[in-house]
Amino acid sequence: MGFSVFSDEHYMGEALKEAKLAAAEDEVPIGAVIVCDGKIIARAHNMTERLNDVTAHAEMIAITAAENFLGAKYLVDCTIYVTIEPCPMCAAALGWAQMGKVVYGAPDPKMGYSLIQGRLLHPKTLVVSGLRASECASLMTDFFRKKR
Amino acid sequence: MGFSVFSDEHYMGEALKEAKLAAAEDEVPIGAVIVCDGKIIARAHNMTERLNDVTAHAEMIAITAAENFLGAKYLVDCTIYVTIEPCPMCAAALGWAQMGKVVYGAPDPKMGYSLIQGRLLHPKTLVVSGLRASECASLMTDFFRKKR
Repeated sequence: MGFSVFSDEHYMGEALKEAKLAAAEDEVPIGAVIVCDGKIIARAHNMTERLNDVTAHAEMIAITAAENFLGAKYLVDCTIYVTIEPCPMCAAALGWAQMGKVVYGAPDPKMGYSLIQGRLLHPKTLVVSGLRASECASLMTDFFRKKR
Repeated sequence: MGFSVFSDEHYMGEALKEAKLAAAEDEVPIGAVIVCDGKIIARAHNMTERLNDVTAHAEMIAITAAENFLGAKYLVDCTIYVTIEPCPMCAAALGWAQMGKVVYGAPDPKMGYSLIQGRLLHPKTLVVSGLRASECASLMTDFFRKKR
């Protein structure tokens, strides 16, 4: 994954900043950053409302941005930090990108990819879950509480 | 799905034209069109090589284009015609878009969404498969034969 002076917690904090930007824009508050050799090469948050586009999840935008930055289709040496468990669309996209490591905060018990039986992520992808989970989850619960 | 003077076979022919454009650009030859009220509102083909982007599948590009055209996130009154069975990423994206009907040509026995257990498409989405399947499949076999 390359050397980094920062911890997973640090980068999840950057993903949380993105999630907070989403909340401020009245978007579902999910944020993501992609890190390569200790450097953030892509950062994104959900933009489905602004773009009127169901594919504009934080992870999808971040994958496209990271591949554009690297000029490469595969992200085997990268780590994505995302505040909420990816949905099946994003997990399968991370699979196509052969993402090296996926670190997510809170689980998504309704739409998370782990509800699906079958390979979505690449078999070599490392997965870490539960990082800063309560901070990640509370952004979501606050957001949907206000919607009711 | 709205009235149309054209048949499913006709629109699959339009998706096949897109697939042939992909082949001419040395992209994996998969094409898609999205139809609403008998009108093609989006057409796309695989662009993963040109864009260096694993998310640039025909269906993903077509969904984004159709939602942009309609100014709406949901495609409940639309039909997508795609030459090859969607992968899990695209199937889940079609699920988010609540696509009314999915018509695909040839199955994808390696990467198709039907390998996955669990809900990817929306439960109300109609699925028709096998339309002009041999034409759709032969574009793929010809393409990968030349790659070997």
